[in-house]
Amino acid sequence: MSGRMTDEVGIDVTRSPSSHHHGENLPYVHKVGVPPKQKLLKEVTSTLKETFFHDEPLRPFKDQPKSRKLVLGLQALFPILEWGRDYNLSKFKGDLVAGLTIASLAIPQDIAYAKLANLDPQYAFYSSFVPPLVYAFMGTSRDVAIGPVAVVSLLLGNLLQNEIDPSNKVEYRRLAFTATFFAGITQVTLGVLRLGFLIDFLSHAAIVGFMAGAAITIGLQQLKVELANNTHRSFILGLSSDYQIHCKGSCSLPFTPRLGNKQSSALRYLLKGFRIGVVAGMIALTESIAIGRTFAAKKDYELDGNKEMVALGTMNIIGSMTSCYVATVITPLFKYTPNAVISAIIISAVIGLIDIQAVILIWKIDKLDFIACMGAFFGVVFVSVEKGLLIAVAISFAKILMQVTRPRTALLGKLPMTSVYRNIQQYPDATKVRGILIVRVDSAIYFSNSNYVKERILRWLTDEEEQVKANKQTRIQSLVVEMSPIIDIDTSGIHALEELYRTLQKREILLVLANPGRAVIDKLYASGFANLIGEDKIFLTVADAVLMYAPKTEEP
Amino acid sequence: MSGRMTDEVGIDVTRSPSSHHHGENLPYVHKVGVPPKQKLLKEVTSTLKETFFHDEPLRPFKDQPKSRKLVLGLQALFPILEWGRDYNLSKFKGDLVAGLTIASLAIPQDIAYAKLANLDPQYAFYSSFVPPLVYAFMGTSRDVAIGPVAVVSLLLGNLLQNEIDPSNKVEYRRLAFTATFFAGITQVTLGVLRLGFLIDFLSHAAIVGFMAGAAITIGLQQLKVELANNTHRSFILGLSSDYQIHCKGSCSLPFTPRLGNKQSSALRYLLKGFRIGVVAGMIALTESIAIGRTFAAKKDYELDGNKEMVALGTMNIIGSMTSCYVATVITPLFKYTPNAVISAIIISAVIGLIDIQAVILIWKIDKLDFIACMGAFFGVVFVSVEKGLLIAVAISFAKILMQVTRPRTALLGKLPMTSVYRNIQQYPDATKVRGILIVRVDSAIYFSNSNYVKERILRWLTDEEEQVKANKQTRIQSLVVEMSPIIDIDTSGIHALEELYRTLQKREILLVLANPGRAVIDKLYASGFANLIGEDKIFLTVADAVLMYAPKTEEP
Repeated sequence: MSGRMTDEVGIDVTRSPSSHHHGENLPYVHKVGVPPKQKLLKEVTSTLKETFFHDEPLRPFKDQPKSRKLVLGLQALFPILEWGRDYNLSKFKGDLVAGLTIASLAIPQDIAYAKLANLDPQYAFYSSFVPPLVYAFMGTSRDVAIGPVAVVSLLLGNLLQNEIDPSNKVEYRRLAFTATFFAGITQVTLGVLRLGFLIDFLSHAAIVGFMAGAAITIGLQQLKVELANNTHRSFILGLSSDYQIHCKGSCSLPFTPRLGNKQSSALRYLLKGFRIGVVAGMIALTESIAIGRTFAAKKDYELDGNKEMVALGTMNIIGSMTSCYVATVITPLFKYTPNAVISAIIISAVIGLIDIQAVILIWKIDKLDFIACMGAFFGVVFVSVEKGLLIAVAISFAKILMQVTRPRTALLGKLPMTSVYRNIQQYPDATKVRGILIVRVDSAIYFSNSNYVKERILRWLTDEEEQVKANKQTRIQSLVVEMSPIIDIDTSGIHALEELYRTLQKREILLVLANPGRAVIDKLYASGFANLIGEDKIFLTVADAVLMYAPKTEEP
Repeated sequence: MSGRMTDEVGIDVTRSPSSHHHGENLPYVHKVGVPPKQKLLKEVTSTLKETFFHDEPLRPFKDQPKSRKLVLGLQALFPILEWGRDYNLSKFKGDLVAGLTIASLAIPQDIAYAKLANLDPQYAFYSSFVPPLVYAFMGTSRDVAIGPVAVVSLLLGNLLQNEIDPSNKVEYRRLAFTATFFAGITQVTLGVLRLGFLIDFLSHAAIVGFMAGAAITIGLQQLKVELANNTHRSFILGLSSDYQIHCKGSCSLPFTPRLGNKQSSALRYLLKGFRIGVVAGMIALTESIAIGRTFAAKKDYELDGNKEMVALGTMNIIGSMTSCYVATVITPLFKYTPNAVISAIIISAVIGLIDIQAVILIWKIDKLDFIACMGAFFGVVFVSVEKGLLIAVAISFAKILMQVTRPRTALLGKLPMTSVYRNIQQYPDATKVRGILIVRVDSAIYFSNSNYVKERILRWLTDEEEQVKANKQTRIQSLVVEMSPIIDIDTSGIHALEELYRTLQKREILLVLANPGRAVIDKLYASGFANLIGEDKIFLTVADAVLMYAPKTEEP
């Protein structure tokens, strides 16, 4: 016996308080804990809390007097109130130098980006001016650069072009600001409703592919424009005469038309602007939060995703509503902007978006992620920006569903000199236990996989029985299902287990469960399945189960 | 020290062949197995095999001569060739009696179901005649009753009614047969392409709710008809004069119009019929395979889902193409069918579809399943049959995504007198280890949850550090992540782990991993993360990790 004796066995000296469910006549094994039943309301509340408030936004407010709560609330909305108190002249000097440096780099870039969105350059200048002011009051990241970005500009440009001809400048611009307004509303709404987790559904791989695709598209577009221009003008630095400034005085708030525009056209753009705004707003969020998170991790501070969204959204709303007034002032400065310079800026900026290293890493780590990445890339390059995104999201989701539909299963064996049972494919020195088949299921058991899991376990059993027969070994007498990775089970899953139990019963094989988790053990009891197979068939560890059910007779 | 000494430690005497990755200067712990790298092609092949051929349909064909393979192939397509050889007169006698008994029960029922589909009664009779003949040759279930069923009839009736007025009998009937034809095509296609797993996406809970909703709808519909009839005719058993037999000779194959019908109308119905057929075909499959599986489990034989689909599909195709020829023959028999009797049959049949016990069980086991069930129920009763189904499927999927978006995490503690580490909420007698925080993540780490997982782990850490500070205990020096339930990880997940590592590094806390599975350890190495944190930080069990990294100094 001692050769098979395991040392992972839980010796039940203390009798866990949670073991009252079980008979008292069982020997020396620590029983599986059945946690005290949670009230339904408490369960629902805690699920909702984890979904929407997992970052505990109200934590600092706890046990504070009312006046302090008001201050904290204002500080939460405007973080400048917190860090502004320590702001001094020497910090301002540093910020001034930093700001001027960034501006000298960002302004030409922003002008280039405005071109991607088919907008006149002054809007770019404007966009690198007002929104950062708003962000300074409300934002939580110290490192993110606020202003137009290449990909969102391109996306906005593409989406707007589908709806209206950019040469119709006034209307086009109105739609652009309406879309910006709704992008802001979308962002604020997501933040306030704490739906920030929705942007997590764009996977890293999808973003890498999307960015690279957008970069290629933008680059090719610029090259084409420049080559066309050169054949006609024979100067690389031809001064642009394309920019016609139409804005003077005729601009208005995004969707409250004045100065001779018909009411109906505004209403028409409202819906289009809403649709475009929602898409552009989500993408803009994804990008800026991804960047913000990278810096936050590097410099070890917390980035509050939901607060970020409110800040970015407010910024876009205020921006969309004030745009023209600012733009008209600075118009003359941008009358002569060299087209070729802009193209060069754009191309050099977007080349940085193609992250070959990341693609190689994705290929190495996960082939399906790579497919999602390539789907986004080719979708953007050959179809359109939105389709590319859609393809990437669809592949990412298909992958999750796939994993839940066809989960991995593994046969476990005992590692030599230990009481640890592990996958015999991962650990070639793990040995199977005579007369017992140990199977691990690597997923929650849900309706989408319950039949597969049942059939797969029976297939392992059939294969093993054939092998046992061929080698004239002890016949399989019990089947141990290691349940550690089974984090949840639903009614279809319980049904599948029942069918498995009945099938095994007919073949005179015991069904034994090892280490069901908290949610699973609850449901095994609630459904009566624990009573059906017998509570003494549920063990804390595989080692316990093997110790109890290994065949006692020696080999014939 | 001995008080903290664990006995689950893997003693590395044999040096697993898979441990060559690791430095040789590490003491006495069995290292985590890194399985030999799989070729990409092999990996893809095995994934595809598990998805489409997990039941190994070609298993019996292995190592057989060619002639035998032909016989086996024919037997696979027509199981009657296999069991037919043992068929004899005494078995036939039993079948004859059974068949007559069932027919006497089924025919009135089938007539009633025809009414649900707004079809004349002779089609019902026909439907309980030809398809079972086809099924006898091709089916694999011994227990399933073939013929119209209430829910599919209702669904078909509803869907057809939306397209065409049932009083336009000839056209209506043509659309019905076109839909039936495409239902058959859908079923055969699913079976041949081995896409049977798609019907698993309708969860048990959704089906229970859907059936109950359909039953209520059907029942109310019948009651209304009868009450209306009674006020007019004052006899409960009023003979039906509603049935006008229009079929004689004017019927045709589903979508090849003859006898004066315009070609264009046929083409018009082709598309509509296709759409309706796909929906009805899927639902019919779901129902009959659910029933077949229940019986197969009870009597312990295998039901081949994909073969079943081919059989059911062929049955519907042949049925849709021969319907009228049969129907015209038996028309006179059904001229006088009492409406009230039909309604009574329908009502008594559908009441059985309301499974209160199952609903109670679903409530007990899984509250979200219950919501899906109720969604299907109220959707069918108050909106429409398709919307009800859509609601149920959407809720079921939302649940899966939810679980992947906000996975459970747990703090682990050591069970007294053992070396087993378990959830301290499930096992109240489990004790935390001084200076070490052990966290288990209960899900694959994917893009949709990677940020949440990282932030949740850091939140556990912050909470614990506050508690430790308040109680003046040893400060947390290492964080052990128990990875057993983490069955897979993608690039976003690896990124999140890297960010977690960097954050911990700044706080001078070691990141230690325990028991990464096969897929995870592969990706930890492929991404370079294993080298980043150091291979000596990856352990086979939590106990090993604790033994190595528990603070060596005594309490101050």
